[in-house]
Amino acid sequence: MAQSPDSGGRDTSRDGPGNVREFKMLTSYGPVWKLIQMQPGLDRIVNGKLIDRASSKMPYRPNPNSTFSAYTSWAALTDRTYWSRHLPAPEEVPTDLPDPEEVAKLFVREEGKFEASDKSTVLFSYFAQWFTDGFLRSDRADPPYYNKNDSNHEIDLMQIYGLTREVTEQLRQHDGGLLKFQMINGEEYPPYAYDAGGNKKPEFSRVPDAPTKLRPDFSPEELSKFFAVGSDTANLQLGFVLMNVLFFREHNRVARVLAGKYPGWDDDRLFETARNVLIVLLIKIVVEEYINHITPYHFGFRANPASFKNPPWYRPNWMSVEFNLVYRWHPLVPDSYRIAGEDVAIADTLYETESLTANGLGQLFEDASNQAAGRIGLFNTPSVLGPVQAWSVEKGRAVALAGYNDYRELCGYPRVTAFNQISGDPRVQKGLEQLYGTVDRIEFFTGLYSEDLRPNSVLPSLIGRMVGIDAFSQAFTNPLLAPRIFTEKTFSPAGMQVIQTTNTLSDILHRNIPDPNKRFVGMTRRDWKRRRG
Amino acid sequence: MAQSPDSGGRDTSRDGPGNVREFKMLTSYGPVWKLIQMQPGLDRIVNGKLIDRASSKMPYRPNPNSTFSAYTSWAALTDRTYWSRHLPAPEEVPTDLPDPEEVAKLFVREEGKFEASDKSTVLFSYFAQWFTDGFLRSDRADPPYYNKNDSNHEIDLMQIYGLTREVTEQLRQHDGGLLKFQMINGEEYPPYAYDAGGNKKPEFSRVPDAPTKLRPDFSPEELSKFFAVGSDTANLQLGFVLMNVLFFREHNRVARVLAGKYPGWDDDRLFETARNVLIVLLIKIVVEEYINHITPYHFGFRANPASFKNPPWYRPNWMSVEFNLVYRWHPLVPDSYRIAGEDVAIADTLYETESLTANGLGQLFEDASNQAAGRIGLFNTPSVLGPVQAWSVEKGRAVALAGYNDYRELCGYPRVTAFNQISGDPRVQKGLEQLYGTVDRIEFFTGLYSEDLRPNSVLPSLIGRMVGIDAFSQAFTNPLLAPRIFTEKTFSPAGMQVIQTTNTLSDILHRNIPDPNKRFVGMTRRDWKRRRG
Repeated sequence: MAQSPDSGGRDTSRDGPGNVREFKMLTSYGPVWKLIQMQPGLDRIVNGKLIDRASSKMPYRPNPNSTFSAYTSWAALTDRTYWSRHLPAPEEVPTDLPDPEEVAKLFVREEGKFEASDKSTVLFSYFAQWFTDGFLRSDRADPPYYNKNDSNHEIDLMQIYGLTREVTEQLRQHDGGLLKFQMINGEEYPPYAYDAGGNKKPEFSRVPDAPTKLRPDFSPEELSKFFAVGSDTANLQLGFVLMNVLFFREHNRVARVLAGKYPGWDDDRLFETARNVLIVLLIKIVVEEYINHITPYHFGFRANPASFKNPPWYRPNWMSVEFNLVYRWHPLVPDSYRIAGEDVAIADTLYETESLTANGLGQLFEDASNQAAGRIGLFNTPSVLGPVQAWSVEKGRAVALAGYNDYRELCGYPRVTAFNQISGDPRVQKGLEQLYGTVDRIEFFTGLYSEDLRPNSVLPSLIGRMVGIDAFSQAFTNPLLAPRIFTEKTFSPAGMQVIQTTNTLSDILHRNIPDPNKRFVGMTRRDWKRRRG
Repeated sequence: MAQSPDSGGRDTSRDGPGNVREFKMLTSYGPVWKLIQMQPGLDRIVNGKLIDRASSKMPYRPNPNSTFSAYTSWAALTDRTYWSRHLPAPEEVPTDLPDPEEVAKLFVREEGKFEASDKSTVLFSYFAQWFTDGFLRSDRADPPYYNKNDSNHEIDLMQIYGLTREVTEQLRQHDGGLLKFQMINGEEYPPYAYDAGGNKKPEFSRVPDAPTKLRPDFSPEELSKFFAVGSDTANLQLGFVLMNVLFFREHNRVARVLAGKYPGWDDDRLFETARNVLIVLLIKIVVEEYINHITPYHFGFRANPASFKNPPWYRPNWMSVEFNLVYRWHPLVPDSYRIAGEDVAIADTLYETESLTANGLGQLFEDASNQAAGRIGLFNTPSVLGPVQAWSVEKGRAVALAGYNDYRELCGYPRVTAFNQISGDPRVQKGLEQLYGTVDRIEFFTGLYSEDLRPNSVLPSLIGRMVGIDAFSQAFTNPLLAPRIFTEKTFSPAGMQVIQTTNTLSDILHRNIPDPNKRFVGMTRRDWKRRRG
């Protein structure tokens, strides 16, 4: 049985020699990579090549199949209210799979056994959940349609602007390009959507309602503190609230900058140009902070559209049902949140905005950056989120996904033949064996989270690869990055300067808080030391 | 003043040397082109290169502008209910343009002065109008929004299947993959949408209503003869009716073939697979019969997706407002139609289906193939359609299009500096001069139709080029032609065989009429002799 020093006892014989070589190349030779990045021309080319490579690990869109029909049909090729799928449903789906509740037990964290990620902070988990909510949008109808979504399939910052123009209109101040706002303790926030009596304000009639399907018993007092923001998840959990307020403030800040620079512009033009800038800022954060945090590589990816010339993966976006399951990172959630010096239970961070307005945005970003998130993998999901994992298993079955091994093959990994090729952890091996008997029966969702992390990686291998493909190939296709559109004409010279001087959430935060002191704000743990060379 | 032998007195000095060379190359050396087409490998490559070249005469999509806003905004990049635009609105739009009624006079045909095309038949005009109605769909609201459309932006045969799945559902038999049908005189037709009393049948509640906005006074008898078909133009004019019935019959024929071959398939699969086949058949007709009829070239284009490997124009479709105006070929309409041995006034071919059911599909296709269409250009639009031309002029102004010369430049033609560079016809030169004074003031729409035809061309130069760009770059992007989708799996082996054995409307017609005799059916006049060498 082949074992590498990093494998922690895992049999690495099915990792695939090409994959091992690539991983080694990208995680070794630190000084060489550094040198490359110091030369702008070379940096741009290597950036393009590596992203090209990452985006080409699966066949390119358009996919012949969606969740609309088991065969190729016109709706399956065009109706994006269904999910695209990377693999069609297998001819035969196993019928005797274990109870989803039993599978969920494999995910759940034992009482008091939180395993921290040695790399990621809570800020990373907040950002991941909030960012993906912008496009991985399961149909929230009741009963849920596992095969449907209400996504716009673009990074469009619907989190603050809403899914439709009707919502955007209601959120706009219609003056100076601004979003409607209120001031609380000297800081800028979106207005509340409900009045003190808990009634929705008529001006926000089209803004998503409080999620009364998830919790039907909001008091008027609770309702009256819900912000009017674009997404139906806007007030769901503190992380959403923080991110929404940050990007909301940046929108208004950019609009004011533009209004100062271009006094002839009307409200519409200021608003639209600020939005153009904001969407690209989000893409910059995604590539340059978020993805670079996730990967264990030396090379830092850049959101530089000039790196590409007509890549073959530049095809219309269409979120896949697999991407949706790849992105269920509930193990990131700690047992409780540390907020302004106090431990707050998960439940107490739901459906509330007052811990933010009381403490201010800077404090809460710093708190989230000082707390470690959980390690992604089995046996580390907070027990309160166990039912969500069972739901994910059910979803995978409802749309008849192919098995874990099929997706390995699709993504260029050899099929595994033994449980110890997935994880070196005997508990994982035993758990999988008891549930599935043989490796070929392991489901996609379970398999994804059963793999061991590799050194310095935030994600197991297959998740990492699939995130890379779907993220790169759907972020760089944003029309704002297209060659004829990524110009000063689109963003204004002032807007382009904002884009060029933004690389991290910290950059955005520090220009949107009253407190002049520099705070530690980051997705990577302050105490994380790269173990390299 | 430079003049070519073909120029009919036109000053050709502003044609552009590259354009002249290219035209000459493609219209000379007949035997060489013939040789190329006899070798499948070479034919495929040259086909790809030429289509690539034609599609690259303008900057590639995505366009930075739409009719949504005068600057780049998120909606302008994503909301396809607005038209895309190839050029933004100019900073300053001339305000003292001639009255649209006056401009329309330049288009209208003098009584008794019909000028026949020496190349095109009425069948060509029927097909052009019906085909483009599938995607160049101006918003038909009242009052009309010149900047909006209700297009799906794909060649999807909405003409027979409807714009939405709700309509498709009502048109389906839900048995054997068929569309609902009735038999009249031994031939298959769509059912009537209205009952004998002129009431819409409840089963067709979502099928478009009779165009009562265009003509409010339909009698119950007239209504009761309207076919239930996908588009709101379904019963507008005899040409629409003919084409709808042809493709409707072919759908049912293919569904029956598939049902015979694949007895295990359910209604849905038979329907969807037949539709997949039908859409590709339409694309084949468009490329291999329609476009080859339009061009004066020796090389015959093929709808062969294997000709392309990731071309740079392979970008999401978005119909442009210019394309819409490029495609207003009302001069094709003759003074009257010759149907079953009688001359029928244009007005009598509107809103009626009985000349078809009385004479049969074969007879009417033959009649349309035996009658010449009109020459495209000024002074040749039937006077009843004069108001439509005025409307086109108004539309161009409502969306503030750039001028004719600006579009010449965009498409690689030098700007003209004198009226006689546009046309050699003194009447055209004088008409333009009287209306516009200088060439730089000529509007896009007027300029398009003022150009002389070149030898063997159906279209003037700029229209020809713009049609080539928008047609190729939006037909070959059809998802059904994508590499992973254009396979037997998508169409079934039997369906793929139908695709491979179809090149012309004649092919489709002859397998869908009871009469076994071969009829002349074509877009090119039977008596048209290519003047070559």
